Amino acid sequence: METLIKLVNQKLDEYIEIKYPKTIFEAMKYTLSLKGKRLRPVMCLETAKILGGNIESALPAACAIEMLHVQSLIHDDLPCMDNDDFRRGKPSNHKVFGEAAAVLAGDALITYAIQTIIEQSKNLSDSQILNMVLEYSKAAGVYGIIGGQIVDIESEKKHFEDGKEKTLYYIHLKKTASLFRLAVKLGCIAANASADTTIELDEFALGFGLAFQIYDDIMDEISSFEEMGKTIGKDKSAQKLTYTTLYGLDNAKNKCFELIKKCHDIIDKYESNVFEEILGMVEHRLEARTN
Amino acid sequence: METLIKLVNQKLDEYIEIKYPKTIFEAMKYTLSLKGKRLRPVMCLETAKILGGNIESALPAACAIEMLHVQSLIHDDLPCMDNDDFRRGKPSNHKVFGEAAAVLAGDALITYAIQTIIEQSKNLSDSQILNMVLEYSKAAGVYGIIGGQIVDIESEKKHFEDGKEKTLYYIHLKKTASLFRLAVKLGCIAANASADTTIELDEFALGFGLAFQIYDDIMDEISSFEEMGKTIGKDKSAQKLTYTTLYGLDNAKNKCFELIKKCHDIIDKYESNVFEEILGMVEHRLEARTN
Repeated sequence: METLIKLVNQKLDEYIEIKYPKTIFEAMKYTLSLKGKRLRPVMCLETAKILGGNIESALPAACAIEMLHVQSLIHDDLPCMDNDDFRRGKPSNHKVFGEAAAVLAGDALITYAIQTIIEQSKNLSDSQILNMVLEYSKAAGVYGIIGGQIVDIESEKKHFEDGKEKTLYYIHLKKTASLFRLAVKLGCIAANASADTTIELDEFALGFGLAFQIYDDIMDEISSFEEMGKTIGKDKSAQKLTYTTLYGLDNAKNKCFELIKKCHDIIDKYESNVFEEILGMVEHRLEARTN
Repeated sequence: METLIKLVNQKLDEYIEIKYPKTIFEAMKYTLSLKGKRLRPVMCLETAKILGGNIESALPAACAIEMLHVQSLIHDDLPCMDNDDFRRGKPSNHKVFGEAAAVLAGDALITYAIQTIIEQSKNLSDSQILNMVLEYSKAAGVYGIIGGQIVDIESEKKHFEDGKEKTLYYIHLKKTASLFRLAVKLGCIAANASADTTIELDEFALGFGLAFQIYDDIMDEISSFEEMGKTIGKDKSAQKLTYTTLYGLDNAKNKCFELIKKCHDIIDKYESNVFEEILGMVEHRLEARTN
């Protein structure tokens, strides 16, 4: 996993060179270079690898997903959204570059990612690249993370077009699972996976995405700033709809373990150390909290 | 021209259906449905037409460019940017839906446009579509409108990485000309134009884009809210770098006429009523102001 993270960090740095006008490139690179676990790009590369594909050909797509993820973090942290001053333990983008530059840096990352997929992808056909860009665009927009984010924000105002349970599922599905599913899907496209394999691995990504958001909801309640690198306890104070506020802490933990077990059932046959490590990470942190 | 505007309005309405979650679709449609001149999509369609291409095959691209244009308007109007309460004579997006939804609606439009190009384009090859998406991504990002917007904002702080003249040219080139060039380029791609024709028409689009921004700078100084549908005189109060503040009103008018003449020199042989009408519109309004 460390090797893949290094590769992603190196390529992210390489793909975005600082040119004129400097401010915007610096703002884009700032949040992107804050060290994170790079879960999404790593899952994209690992998917291509376990399917016998070439890691190289999935690298631009993997980095594009991280750019999109970082874009969503930059905009989510804005004062008019979640108003968060810290991200990955450092001041958030708008605290360093101002709100205007942060809005623009986010905007820029959305299409810079697409440009990266189109210009940097190697050994892929036009049809594969086009397919990647389409999946990316859906996951980035109203049918993906934006859909999740708007419902998340509306939930603070206690405005539910649907019931609470459905609304919570929609938020987790769209806001969080979308990008994990995109990561695995682009890995599948890079490796020219069959339709059956793609569906199977999508189930895995969906399960992991839902588990990850429940884990995040739990951590927001019981974790610390030092552990998470961002302000903790904000969901509760913002009266957000989360898995723990709706179902309670114990049910949240049980659901998370159940989802991770389902992920194991799908992925174990591929004997991937990287996926084992990712699932293990969530399990171990949760177990440490259960005892 | 009226026919093309109607077609664009109809398709824009058709491409974005209001679904769950309603708020985001409504916010996207709100600014998009404010009646404008639809210059960019019309120029895209007309380019395809004069080159013997099919208008139908350029329609999704034309609408995508309008979505991108509207995205830039929504984000530019935000309090942290130009802080404008009106657009096309109506309250701006964040005044109606709030800042969070306005940020998200803008974000969503960026990739909804790409999805529209990929999913709705008819009779185009994968390579043509991919080429369109690449040109779109460049024009939308750091090498296009975002680059122009960040330098525009920095110019208010009197921070010029380059000299004033170069900086002003960069702002006009990137912030305004980018989208007109994109419009003509996607029309060329839809019509499978030769490299020579594409370069020639790009010259036209560049000239028109620069002329249009100088015209806009002039209007910001001498026009009225009723005429422009937006707050007037803001450039001056924000101490923005504009053609009129740098070179004076007379030089601005002369430069604008000169650029429009160059546009005529390129486009007249195509005998396009629509392009004549667009060039004439800028000329006549400026002439009315000169006398």
